[in-house]
Amino acid sequence: MTGLEIIKSISLPSPTKIVLLVLDGLGGLPDPETGKTELETAETPNLDRLAANGICGLIDPVGPGITPGSAPGHLALFGYDPVHFIIGRGALEAIGIGFELEPGDVAARGNFCTIDEKGLVTDRRAGRIPTEKCTELCHLLDGLVIDGVKLFVSPVREHRLVVIFRGVGLVPNIGDTDPQQLGVAPKPVTALGPEAERLAGVARQFIERAKSVLVEHHPANMVLLRGFSQRPHWPTMNEVYKLKPAAVAGYPMYRGLAKLIGMDVLETDSSIDSEIAVLKKNYINYDFFFLHVKQTDAAGEDGDFDRKVRGIEQVDRAVSELIDLEPDVIVVTGDHSTPALLKGHSWHPVPVLIYSKWCRPDTVNQFGESACIAGGLGRMPGSHIMPLALANALKLTKFGA
Amino acid sequence: MTGLEIIKSISLPSPTKIVLLVLDGLGGLPDPETGKTELETAETPNLDRLAANGICGLIDPVGPGITPGSAPGHLALFGYDPVHFIIGRGALEAIGIGFELEPGDVAARGNFCTIDEKGLVTDRRAGRIPTEKCTELCHLLDGLVIDGVKLFVSPVREHRLVVIFRGVGLVPNIGDTDPQQLGVAPKPVTALGPEAERLAGVARQFIERAKSVLVEHHPANMVLLRGFSQRPHWPTMNEVYKLKPAAVAGYPMYRGLAKLIGMDVLETDSSIDSEIAVLKKNYINYDFFFLHVKQTDAAGEDGDFDRKVRGIEQVDRAVSELIDLEPDVIVVTGDHSTPALLKGHSWHPVPVLIYSKWCRPDTVNQFGESACIAGGLGRMPGSHIMPLALANALKLTKFGA
Repeated sequence: MTGLEIIKSISLPSPTKIVLLVLDGLGGLPDPETGKTELETAETPNLDRLAANGICGLIDPVGPGITPGSAPGHLALFGYDPVHFIIGRGALEAIGIGFELEPGDVAARGNFCTIDEKGLVTDRRAGRIPTEKCTELCHLLDGLVIDGVKLFVSPVREHRLVVIFRGVGLVPNIGDTDPQQLGVAPKPVTALGPEAERLAGVARQFIERAKSVLVEHHPANMVLLRGFSQRPHWPTMNEVYKLKPAAVAGYPMYRGLAKLIGMDVLETDSSIDSEIAVLKKNYINYDFFFLHVKQTDAAGEDGDFDRKVRGIEQVDRAVSELIDLEPDVIVVTGDHSTPALLKGHSWHPVPVLIYSKWCRPDTVNQFGESACIAGGLGRMPGSHIMPLALANALKLTKFGA
Repeated sequence: MTGLEIIKSISLPSPTKIVLLVLDGLGGLPDPETGKTELETAETPNLDRLAANGICGLIDPVGPGITPGSAPGHLALFGYDPVHFIIGRGALEAIGIGFELEPGDVAARGNFCTIDEKGLVTDRRAGRIPTEKCTELCHLLDGLVIDGVKLFVSPVREHRLVVIFRGVGLVPNIGDTDPQQLGVAPKPVTALGPEAERLAGVARQFIERAKSVLVEHHPANMVLLRGFSQRPHWPTMNEVYKLKPAAVAGYPMYRGLAKLIGMDVLETDSSIDSEIAVLKKNYINYDFFFLHVKQTDAAGEDGDFDRKVRGIEQVDRAVSELIDLEPDVIVVTGDHSTPALLKGHSWHPVPVLIYSKWCRPDTVNQFGESACIAGGLGRMPGSHIMPLALANALKLTKFGA
């Protein structure tokens, strides 16, 4: 049995409530001057109170040394082992921009690129054209119907786009056209099995059409496609955990991921205050809430240590309202580390706290990376947090007799 | 290779001796007044001495958040990953009452239940009839021979019984008759494959016979069967570890489990003093001893914090005699937590200590949940303890060259 199958076999519905608060990119690295990370620098009386009365530790979302993308980082927190639950690149990109992939749709990740007069790729990113230009070019290509297949072409950011093919009989078993090197031509669209010929034919015609439309838009005079894939069909949180779950997240990627595993997605803007208000309003209707805070990651990606500190402090003030709701279990953690010093996601384990009546508190009384090393949870894979949250909410029965 | 295969490939016979002392349900939760668990409250000078000179940690018998039943909890301690070594419910129930399942026997877990005049189930537990009544009714049904198959019908507790079918050609691929809900008829006995038809026919006749015998014994006027299964065939501890192992356990469940993996089961009553006496008497004949103490779990299940404390203190006194025997390795732990505050098994990790000349001691000098967090073993799956015990007894050679 996999971990998820075990949990499914012992999960029970119950009226207790769990709140999972994810500060995106929470973990950090110490400022060389102070020796303190962003979280350790922030004034966090409410998080510290939860830590003091809860149990703390560190999680590896995917595994030690592995820097998670946003999708695997979150899947781990939802208890879906990200090494087994893998989304194709195209589908993930579509979900990331909030596109509602229907069953049967195939999505491909695209790049605008530059080709020379011989048709050889000279820049795989078309000079990183601005997002506005990308949007304009996508508009020129959007809405085609080829052999009865409808195409959606949507901008992502800079040179990145996503192409969705909607029609009957589409199988995404198609090779990438991105050659991943310069000085060669884009690869032709290749069906990797006869069942994919229909989609390959449509994709070929799309690329020809794009080439002729883009000819006058140098440096973005060609398009490369990769990661043809469909929306995965995974067991829902209700099927596995018997939960009625809701997501309170402002950004499309996280809303899309939450939908994939059957969460209701509630309307909110991306501020923590708005999210807490939405949580309160819907509190009686659900027994699991995923709250997502983006600002901490964005500040880390920008290398802005102080802004990340302020983001954490802002969340801390909102946490007092969360505590007042008295959920049975509160989990606070991140989907990965984003140290301002590294200006990007990193492999460092992420602090986590679980607060509940039944958590067997440890001696940690401050929520921070160093303090959490001594926590009662120890260091564990991120996918263990969800079973612990369910256990603390008394939603799991015995395994075996 | 699985964990067990790796250990099998490197295990060596040797004259060193290991004692595994299992205090059932050892782990607890802190008394809200004192902040101390049962184990932390108990006066345990001998266990503390072992902790101070040994290496400590916390184990998750099955996995974080998962509350183990007694069987998986013990299998983990014996090094058999409980997620892979699974016993059918009927076989486990038979083992639990000390019934000697022979190869080919099929066991089913049974409930006496109540049906109304239309044959619909109105109480799946027959009002939880007392064990004496259950025993009396089982006696009425015991000893039948149907189509050459001999049936043993034995009481378990209250409304619970176990039915063992002994004969040739019995395959346990049979659906449950327990409908798991009220207001419907018991399900008919169904063979889930043609190979199970013979057993299904016998089981059908048994249920008809039971119905006619029980008609005048309302509320226990019918029987439901589930979990048809056979004794599993697992590698023995001798095959895997090259050990000559003995179990010193007073309760049938633990004796039965020990037998399943090839331990000799020594006669003892269930007091720790009797167990230590049996250990001493047989000390030269074996190189591995599993000692099982039930009282700690029983007190926890009853919610009796103080009785659990006293149970631990009683064991501690006996431990001094154990130390005097100077085994090469002493392991003290539990198969799961049973906090008095929860009155049942729980998911909380269990303190463990390993004492040996070669253990690389840590700074822990008191055996308790909080202290063990800082132990040198960290927090680990329960099935890792057995390889560590073998290593400390110098019974494992190098892996790879």
